Amino acid sequence: MKVTEEKIIAPNGFYAVGSHIGIKRKRKDLTIYYSKHDCNAAAVFTRNALKAAPLLWNKKLLDSGDKIRAIVINSGNANACTGEIGKVHTEQMAQDLADCLNLKKEEVFVASTGIIGQVLPIDLISKGIQENSAALAQDEDAFNDAAEGILTTDTFTKQITVEFELFGKPVKLAGQAKGSGMIHPNMATMLSFLFTDANIGSNLMQEMLKESVDDTYNMISVDGDTSTNDMVILLANAKSDTSEIMPDSKEYYIFKEALDKINRYLAMQIIKDGEGATKFIEVHIKSAHSKEDAKKMCKAIINSSLVKTAFFGEDANWGRLVAAMGYAGVKFDFDKINILFKSDVGEIALVDNGKSLEFNEDKALEILEEKEIKAIIDLNQGNAEAKAWGCDLSYEYVKINGEYRS
Amino acid sequence: MKVTEEKIIAPNGFYAVGSHIGIKRKRKDLTIYYSKHDCNAAAVFTRNALKAAPLLWNKKLLDSGDKIRAIVINSGNANACTGEIGKVHTEQMAQDLADCLNLKKEEVFVASTGIIGQVLPIDLISKGIQENSAALAQDEDAFNDAAEGILTTDTFTKQITVEFELFGKPVKLAGQAKGSGMIHPNMATMLSFLFTDANIGSNLMQEMLKESVDDTYNMISVDGDTSTNDMVILLANAKSDTSEIMPDSKEYYIFKEALDKINRYLAMQIIKDGEGATKFIEVHIKSAHSKEDAKKMCKAIINSSLVKTAFFGEDANWGRLVAAMGYAGVKFDFDKINILFKSDVGEIALVDNGKSLEFNEDKALEILEEKEIKAIIDLNQGNAEAKAWGCDLSYEYVKINGEYRS
Repeated sequence: MKVTEEKIIAPNGFYAVGSHIGIKRKRKDLTIYYSKHDCNAAAVFTRNALKAAPLLWNKKLLDSGDKIRAIVINSGNANACTGEIGKVHTEQMAQDLADCLNLKKEEVFVASTGIIGQVLPIDLISKGIQENSAALAQDEDAFNDAAEGILTTDTFTKQITVEFELFGKPVKLAGQAKGSGMIHPNMATMLSFLFTDANIGSNLMQEMLKESVDDTYNMISVDGDTSTNDMVILLANAKSDTSEIMPDSKEYYIFKEALDKINRYLAMQIIKDGEGATKFIEVHIKSAHSKEDAKKMCKAIINSSLVKTAFFGEDANWGRLVAAMGYAGVKFDFDKINILFKSDVGEIALVDNGKSLEFNEDKALEILEEKEIKAIIDLNQGNAEAKAWGCDLSYEYVKINGEYRS
Repeated sequence: MKVTEEKIIAPNGFYAVGSHIGIKRKRKDLTIYYSKHDCNAAAVFTRNALKAAPLLWNKKLLDSGDKIRAIVINSGNANACTGEIGKVHTEQMAQDLADCLNLKKEEVFVASTGIIGQVLPIDLISKGIQENSAALAQDEDAFNDAAEGILTTDTFTKQITVEFELFGKPVKLAGQAKGSGMIHPNMATMLSFLFTDANIGSNLMQEMLKESVDDTYNMISVDGDTSTNDMVILLANAKSDTSEIMPDSKEYYIFKEALDKINRYLAMQIIKDGEGATKFIEVHIKSAHSKEDAKKMCKAIINSSLVKTAFFGEDANWGRLVAAMGYAGVKFDFDKINILFKSDVGEIALVDNGKSLEFNEDKALEILEEKEIKAIIDLNQGNAEAKAWGCDLSYEYVKINGEYRS
């Protein structure tokens, strides 16, 4: 399994383009993805009760089970909380791209990311789609432009390609994402677009994507807020010309590994681009009664502002982690747990069998001064585990989010 | 109904003392409350799954239904995550005070607040109890010392007395609290102690206290974390010498109003003392389908770091409030809602019937520059409402919580 970070080596039949059409001041703000052949599609949407117009459109297409051929995305404006006109604009975007590429609008997914509550500058977008659809290309640069076109406050593009063999033939799975957590004001969305030339059915792919998203994107936190526009889309066009991947087969597990690899990488990149983040934190809960329990505890810890500020302050303040575990809605026996903090320069045990340990503050500081910290909590009460990832809460976070519009 | 803020006028038969016994460096760290006569008791404890030893003890006493005579509290050490020895120490505190006051230990509630995971300096505390129990007094100064003795990182005491008439006789209800939200590191607890000479049964009082706490302390947020030691205790000794308060009677409603007044005041004082807070925010959800729905939305908004930083930045960023409402777990129709921000200098409408309004940024800034801001969201879809209160998230918050132990 060959992993190439920071760029896309296009799976067979996939094209992309990204450009600046004037929604944002300077940065690219329109991206189009296209497959020359019909694609099976899978998608996961935000759990936020307030879903922006493009999500409702995509969900309708997904539920219909029809083949998909393209995705059009604008950044700079989320087309969220825009009422009926928002829905009209979403369909217009699909129709515009369909017209250019000789497709039906029902073959086109739509995404928008940016400010909430403002009407989309639809004329700019229609014109932009017409001007750019002819420039669709398969090379690395075209995909790089596309990766830029979906960004909002991100400081770098997030791209990865994984190459592997199925049934003796080369297959690619590649992905691009945007998002710095739910960090910047109204510009908060997490978007991820994945493309593969594997031969895989929609239902199987949907099941695998859901599971993979739960273990990756859904286990990261910058500040715990979720957006109205979050989505992950996976398109598969079968152009590796292999047999179809069957459930529980060897090929299934190879593909799942590739999918998890990509989603985990993109999720980590989002955390690392978290606004104002100075540290990358991994929370690992071991020996829980169930994976669900372990996940809840991981998330409570990684979402806690008190935990985040403690890491920013390089303070081995395990009491805050324990208090967060306490309100996670999971029963556990504190008297059995071990806690240790770990980084590249070493590790330090803080709690052993529920007993607070005396520890060397200098050594703790040395460990916590590193950029990447692991907090490992062994509950010693079951066989399940989970990991979650997040960043610290810094002055810079408050600054960026307090001063955004003013 | 006469309200006296910032001091206690002791209800008949209640005594207090507060002093420095050496757990903390300089500030008072031991408080004793005492009633000359048997008290009915009501109490509400933290929902955190991890309950400190004193809470377990108090819960046992409460469940037994026996009369209560005193409360002993130390600050500086939470006696949380301290295992078996923690339980032994809690009982020791109750026993020490019982010995001094000629009570049974089962008549003594115990509370601790401060650092998590450290063994209590029990010898200091035993000695402190012996030295101080003789100094119990009924005057304002004694209660002021007591109010100081329960503080941790608070910058001021929180006290209030309400006087009213029941059955033609004067009755008092008074309370003291501590807590700057769940703000300072391991020193985060919210404690509230209420005393009345009203004649009221335990069960009725428990029901009223629970309801009042749900609408007051449970609707405030500094950073959304909850502590292992939070508790609210209400003692009633009937020494106003009136008939007993009956459910749904006129006296019931008078007493409830006094109780709500006290709890709301103390909750607001806690928010105003929130570490690093520069603004006091009230979120008011109107016309929801149910009170439960309205509460969930209020809390999601007031707990959001993005909302908090927006208020710190004096930014009329309603999209963040709406996004938080979206993940509150409540269904609502955005197309019907109105949003306005309000302060002493005026108000500004931001959303009308789900439509984003053009607004004057200068006027918005003028309103948001005030210290106390109200965000009023009218859902226009039901008859229930709720309010929640919180503070902004400032540089100072990050500084205090990042630098606490180092």
